Amino acid sequence: MTTTDTATTRRERFEHGLDVLGRIDGEAGRNVLAALSDVSPELAHQVAAWGFGEIYSRPGLAPRDRQLVTLGMLTALGGCEPQLRVHVNAALNVGLTPQQIVEALLHSAVYCGFPRALNATLAAKQVFAERGLLPVLPA
Amino acid sequence: MTTTDTATTRRERFEHGLDVLGRIDGEAGRNVLAALSDVSPELAHQVAAWGFGEIYSRPGLAPRDRQLVTLGMLTALGGCEPQLRVHVNAALNVGLTPQQIVEALLHSAVYCGFPRALNATLAAKQVFAERGLLPVLPA
Amino acid sequence: MTTTDTATTRRERFEHGLDVLGRIDGEAGRNVLAALSDVSPELAHQVAAWGFGEIYSRPGLAPRDRQLVTLGMLTALGGCEPQLRVHVNAALNVGLTPQQIVEALLHSAVYCGFPRALNATLAAKQVFAERGLLPVLPA
Amino acid sequence: MTTTDTATTRRERFEHGLDVLGRIDGEAGRNVLAALSDVSPELAHQVAAWGFGEIYSRPGLAPRDRQLVTLGMLTALGGCEPQLRVHVNAALNVGLTPQQIVEALLHSAVYCGFPRALNATLAAKQVFAERGLLPVLPA
Amino acid sequence: MTTTDTATTRRERFEHGLDVLGRIDGEAGRNVLAALSDVSPELAHQVAAWGFGEIYSRPGLAPRDRQLVTLGMLTALGGCEPQLRVHVNAALNVGLTPQQIVEALLHSAVYCGFPRALNATLAAKQVFAERGLLPVLPA
Amino acid sequence: MTTTDTATTRRERFEHGLDVLGRIDGEAGRNVLAALSDVSPELAHQVAAWGFGEIYSRPGLAPRDRQLVTLGMLTALGGCEPQLRVHVNAALNVGLTPQQIVEALLHSAVYCGFPRALNATLAAKQVFAERGLLPVLPA
Repeated sequence: MTTTDTATTRRERFEHGLDVLGRIDGEAGRNVLAALSDVSPELAHQVAAWGFGEIYSRPGLAPRDRQLVTLGMLTALGGCEPQLRVHVNAALNVGLTPQQIVEALLHSAVYCGFPRALNATLAAKQVFAERGLLPVLPA
Repeated sequence: MTTTDTATTRRERFEHGLDVLGRIDGEAGRNVLAALSDVSPELAHQVAAWGFGEIYSRPGLAPRDRQLVTLGMLTALGGCEPQLRVHVNAALNVGLTPQQIVEALLHSAVYCGFPRALNATLAAKQVFAERGLLPVLPA
Repeated sequence: MTTTDTATTRRERFEHGLDVLGRIDGEAGRNVLAALSDVSPELAHQVAAWGFGEIYSRPGLAPRDRQLVTLGMLTALGGCEPQLRVHVNAALNVGLTPQQIVEALLHSAVYCGFPRALNATLAAKQVFAERGLLPVLPA
Repeated sequence: MTTTDTATTRRERFEHGLDVLGRIDGEAGRNVLAALSDVSPELAHQVAAWGFGEIYSRPGLAPRDRQLVTLGMLTALGGCEPQLRVHVNAALNVGLTPQQIVEALLHSAVYCGFPRALNATLAAKQVFAERGLLPVLPA
Repeated sequence: MTTTDTATTRRERFEHGLDVLGRIDGEAGRNVLAALSDVSPELAHQVAAWGFGEIYSRPGLAPRDRQLVTLGMLTALGGCEPQLRVHVNAALNVGLTPQQIVEALLHSAVYCGFPRALNATLAAKQVFAERGLLPVLPA
Repeated sequence: MTTTDTATTRRERFEHGLDVLGRIDGEAGRNVLAALSDVSPELAHQVAAWGFGEIYSRPGLAPRDRQLVTLGMLTALGGCEPQLRVHVNAALNVGLTPQQIVEALLHSAVYCGFPRALNATLAAKQVFAERGLLPVLPA
């Protein structure tokens, strides 16, 4: 856990983060890091070592709960369709159902309006299609 | 009108909204609903029943005025090019001229800056091209 | 539930929404509606009847899960401190702990950056102070 | 009009813009320029000379139509409550009624979500209160 | 410089802006203007005459400093990948190195979060690829 | 520097970050951390240890250049006036002049529009007033 005070090296923190990232985002997350390798390996390092190793790995919020917050943020930000696809995959990986994801994105219309909700829902649809999860039937 | 207090069913509210949506957005709007049918039919329902049936159908603001407000919002939000194309079509359908649309998007540069104004103007250009309205001549 | 097809009046939908809103947002939510009464009673109607009566009341996502998505969205949008205070109250009302709320807002730094995370955390702090929940001790 | 090719000086362009700004935004607009005088007189110059003298003064879109687009943009941007107050004043000055302004902001909920619509409506309420226009009665 | 008070014509201001734009943005900037020629020649005029002729040409901030501010803004706005590509080109043209650009975009993660930083970095990567500047080696 | 691979403890990384933060943001930055101490000490930790200790301390971009990027981002994000005040202070601390800061915020109008530029300029004005730097005279 991140609050222990054992000395760690930069490399150890990266390896730890990569492990957490792999369990949550899977291949989609590793592809993002690979795309950065020849342009900003430091950004790849920080996504893994800090984003996943420091923050995601904290025990105070369950992985599925983190994905719910994340889906809300990415929908609200707009222009984050690639990240939404990564995190719809992640949401499925940590136990949210397609129905719950779709419901969260419907809920987002109340706070972000329909355009953001539509763009996010169509990004989710792409992931569901790739994973053979269409049609999403009502719960 | 939405302020009457006649009892309506969910289906009747959807049919009413679909009728309003068809008159304003035309085929572009119906295509959005169709794309949602296998992933979030409830979002399609709410776009039609609430967005169009409840809000658009209110008499307090003319359809062309609603499109001016909408073009302003979609430009400012950013990342809403698909919705801008639907609503540039809608704006033409309810009586705004290409010159007025282009002028509204020029005006947006004052409040949103040039990148948002450029992205919106190029989205409008695609619609004008599809409808044979290029070049847009000065008024 | 919203998918039944019983005919309802506008007033019935409002009363239903008001009831849902009261259970989730409590007094903070009712204060928002009161502030709208002399300027846009229709907006107050739609917040209650549509936002709460139509969307919040759907069974597909638990109230606590809706608040996690909502906290993510409001943090990402920025400039929504009044709404964040209402929804931090709501999050506490539906069972999230101060520790979970604080953790969700820490998590938001990864996706929205520190300024949004700081503004949201300080908005939450105001609510915790009003409810006698400070200091928030580590879980 | 801005497309004529008569040579003008920087000062003439500022004076022209100031005249347009005064007619649309009135005292609220002049107060903004005054607040900038000891920190960024150039920004004050550009708001007047470019924003109003170059863009607002173009004949291709009526002043009331420009305010509809502007209300949409300021609502969508968020965090622009001071500017919203200036432009709700401007909207009243160029002939929009309180009812139309309120309706435009209700409409914004469809595209921007309720928090932005609420913040904008409460900013408008402040202006209506200052001008003795409350309550806003249904049309 | 813009603060002189020599009378200029609209055409002279455009020619001056075009000259400034050409030196900073090069071909990428001229392509943007060309794309606007049949839809909004006035927007093309204002980008050149005002954005570049009036603002960029001011001596108070060095061209490389303006690009640093601009990269920060375009990253934060989101949905501005086409403009980011133009301005990554511009940043290289005015003397920023690929390493400095990549570092500025890494820095943006602190304030805007990882999704915006990732989208901007991948937009920069496209420009670096086109100009044969990959891989970007650590400084 | 952050790329060395010496093992460090969490506390050491915090102390290092606090040192960097103190040199750049000074008292304004330390006040932010203090305000978090009873609600989210972990967020305070991450602002210092990661934001400043990991990112700000990297040698690839000069402190004044980081502030230019930061001013651009905070202006574009909107709703970040408290952070803008901290970073206008920081910008002065690392060698930018009031004239350069004001020019950077004028420049932001081109990309973010006037409302964001105005809000940022008025936030900067507050800092200049506190530090006895008004009026800002043309360079």
